[in-house]
Amino acid sequence: MASKSFYAIISGVGPGTGRATALRFAQAYPVVLLARKPESYSSIVAEIKEAGGQAFGLTADATDEAAVNAAFESIKKVLPGSKLAAAVYNVAGGFARKPFLELKREELDASLDAAPKGFFTFAQKTLPLLLESVSESPHPPSLIITGATASVKGSALFGSFAAGKFALRALGQSLAREFGPKGVHVSHAIIDGVIEMPRTKGFTVNDGAEDGKISPDAIAETYWHLHTQHRSAFTQEIDIRPYVEKY
Amino acid sequence: MASKSFYAIISGVGPGTGRATALRFAQAYPVVLLARKPESYSSIVAEIKEAGGQAFGLTADATDEAAVNAAFESIKKVLPGSKLAAAVYNVAGGFARKPFLELKREELDASLDAAPKGFFTFAQKTLPLLLESVSESPHPPSLIITGATASVKGSALFGSFAAGKFALRALGQSLAREFGPKGVHVSHAIIDGVIEMPRTKGFTVNDGAEDGKISPDAIAETYWHLHTQHRSAFTQEIDIRPYVEKY
Amino acid sequence: MASKSFYAIISGVGPGTGRATALRFAQAYPVVLLARKPESYSSIVAEIKEAGGQAFGLTADATDEAAVNAAFESIKKVLPGSKLAAAVYNVAGGFARKPFLELKREELDASLDAAPKGFFTFAQKTLPLLLESVSESPHPPSLIITGATASVKGSALFGSFAAGKFALRALGQSLAREFGPKGVHVSHAIIDGVIEMPRTKGFTVNDGAEDGKISPDAIAETYWHLHTQHRSAFTQEIDIRPYVEKY
Amino acid sequence: MASKSFYAIISGVGPGTGRATALRFAQAYPVVLLARKPESYSSIVAEIKEAGGQAFGLTADATDEAAVNAAFESIKKVLPGSKLAAAVYNVAGGFARKPFLELKREELDASLDAAPKGFFTFAQKTLPLLLESVSESPHPPSLIITGATASVKGSALFGSFAAGKFALRALGQSLAREFGPKGVHVSHAIIDGVIEMPRTKGFTVNDGAEDGKISPDAIAETYWHLHTQHRSAFTQEIDIRPYVEKY
Repeated sequence: MASKSFYAIISGVGPGTGRATALRFAQAYPVVLLARKPESYSSIVAEIKEAGGQAFGLTADATDEAAVNAAFESIKKVLPGSKLAAAVYNVAGGFARKPFLELKREELDASLDAAPKGFFTFAQKTLPLLLESVSESPHPPSLIITGATASVKGSALFGSFAAGKFALRALGQSLAREFGPKGVHVSHAIIDGVIEMPRTKGFTVNDGAEDGKISPDAIAETYWHLHTQHRSAFTQEIDIRPYVEKY
Repeated sequence: MASKSFYAIISGVGPGTGRATALRFAQAYPVVLLARKPESYSSIVAEIKEAGGQAFGLTADATDEAAVNAAFESIKKVLPGSKLAAAVYNVAGGFARKPFLELKREELDASLDAAPKGFFTFAQKTLPLLLESVSESPHPPSLIITGATASVKGSALFGSFAAGKFALRALGQSLAREFGPKGVHVSHAIIDGVIEMPRTKGFTVNDGAEDGKISPDAIAETYWHLHTQHRSAFTQEIDIRPYVEKY
Repeated sequence: MASKSFYAIISGVGPGTGRATALRFAQAYPVVLLARKPESYSSIVAEIKEAGGQAFGLTADATDEAAVNAAFESIKKVLPGSKLAAAVYNVAGGFARKPFLELKREELDASLDAAPKGFFTFAQKTLPLLLESVSESPHPPSLIITGATASVKGSALFGSFAAGKFALRALGQSLAREFGPKGVHVSHAIIDGVIEMPRTKGFTVNDGAEDGKISPDAIAETYWHLHTQHRSAFTQEIDIRPYVEKY
Repeated sequence: MASKSFYAIISGVGPGTGRATALRFAQAYPVVLLARKPESYSSIVAEIKEAGGQAFGLTADATDEAAVNAAFESIKKVLPGSKLAAAVYNVAGGFARKPFLELKREELDASLDAAPKGFFTFAQKTLPLLLESVSESPHPPSLIITGATASVKGSALFGSFAAGKFALRALGQSLAREFGPKGVHVSHAIIDGVIEMPRTKGFTVNDGAEDGKISPDAIAETYWHLHTQHRSAFTQEIDIRPYVEKY
């Protein structure tokens, strides 16, 4: 009877925040990694296993309801009887920096798909599971959302990206107010800077200052802190940025 | 030589803010009224004509690109040589107050269609026209957006509506920053209260206080003020609420 | 029996926003100009009179309670039986741009004196008078506050100035919520840019763009609009900035 | 030898957040407790010592510069050669809930004294010490500020309290932007709820819900997390509220 086992799920796993969050939460829970392509999670699954943790990769596009549904069905098989303690929505996408009159409607759609729509599906799948965990979970069951500078500021040339991120934040606020009183912690993190990862290796940010890009491990540590907050002291929104960031 | 004539367009015309704005701007310009159904604008067109103004109603769903395109083609015929001085995006829709787990994906879609997507199409049609008017328009060419309480607060049970309104605000901010320096005034109004109109007649708000619902004429007067602001003193965001509103 | 006459008062009159506001409101009301030194208002008083308006200059430091009290006593004599329709708090001061560790406590004090403290005294004198005007004033009696970029953003090196401006905004919000339901319109304007006036003549802002500094007349026009808003549609906060401003 | 020892200081120690923060930071550092009266800290000092930690109580009114100066001189004697790793400004005071027209100027002064003025003095004493610790401190040297709901919202009847708290937040933002790039982490916490402590025992909040008041230990845990954040991932502002709080 292992009914008291708990797991975490991270949607939008790649080499940055997703990987770091998976590794951090794997210190406490088996973790399920969702990504559009196996190559996004396979090495991370291996890394977690090597470190003695449990990890499962599942392939699904966050914006494809049927694929997400199938993924959640799979979880029941790989982690029978296990309950959901934490869900992290970290899906990127829909980023297009360009003059508004050159934007295509599809670019706005992509941003809305990756942000509010994908999250909507993810939240509808995970919230019922998180609610079931309220009474027994080691920490208040948590739904953590990765936001960005564009979640709170619509900069020139970033309209479509900001539209998605603003909408995602709106949903997060609404869910925090609806599900907080039921014991589920919904938290939104504004990641205000460039994240250190292979893709950003060549970027010069903050005049090339040391630690001028955000360490994904540091983000993961803060996500873990959010997850472990006592229910009398939930954080709904937090910003995270390098010490040298201009804002 | 009527090349210096200017017109205004209002998308999302109904018996509240849309009608009042049309009447107010018709004191200065011929106005084009866009709505999904002729019954939404026909009596207003008549009202404006009776008052000695010029008005044209066009039928188009803001979320239907082809219909919007056709509407803008029609304008060239009914107002040949006339230039666009002001465009108001006032499309409502996508309002669903319900527990998140009872929301259907279509309800989120409806909110995103009415807000960021419909506005995206409208802005892509009107901004090039507004840019052409910069040097000659009697006031800085303006793109005015109707927002709501849900544009800045994701309340419980209002997630899908807020997602759309937040996204709309994001686009507005981004366009203000991109097109302001080119001389176009993009402004977003947070309408924080219930509007006085036939549909809200029976609603008791603010304990039934006199003037406890927002007068659409008062909104229109503020929209007109926004339109006439000098370019050295543009307002990007304004809130409007009854004196008795709790917030 | 001139009991229905109304006047306006502007505290913090100088050559920029104060002067322009006085001129604008003088088109409708006799205006009282408060400043620390007669040279700040005497030419403006003359200008208003020449244009056929009524104006009275009074000398008082906004932070000196006794002087402010005396000024309000004087008003009863120069405008007997007249009621207050609008009060504008436009006191500058306390601006010090410097590294925090070089700031003197007196510089913080000066900022707090000019902003929350001076306004506190002004509001305690004017609100009872504004309340008395609610039933008869041609427009909802108004208390309008001049804010700045530093009202909403604590930038590096602007700590003491921002402290004052944030505090002023706090008071404005609180008074809007307390006195709005009683019929007094309390509104706060975020002036986000450099104002065109003699003192800023030599400043190059926004790359020297035409109209890159805010026209004080344009601010005054917006203040007048705020004053004339219907009570069902009060604006609590508005931003004002040049079309070319970066933000 | 032993030059690498570090300590923490908490200003505004009482039975709630101050005590909990002192206990939490005492697990890692000797702590200095500042309060206006010895009875505010003496039992906490004893409690920390009993638990095996090091603690020193010092008596000083945060708004009395000379007393604060003297306190910092004392620290050099009780902790010779020790460097400052963390400073927490937790001074309450200036709380007055009353109609604006009944407020006395002294009540506004008390709020400004406890918040921006007291903090100004504390920050001018601690920032030079924190800067000296940047290269060797186990975690980025931190200056943590306790805010409140009134830091971001000026509610009716809370004007003077909000004025102080807004101003405090302004200073915190400004210092974060100035000292962040130098390696000091300045962070502001919005405590949005009633704190569980002896004084609030009888208060019924959030309909008497279990854990409806904020656990000071939970706040302290979050403060500790802020202190330990990597410099590439600083949080400038965080909110903390009970799961059942309405907002």
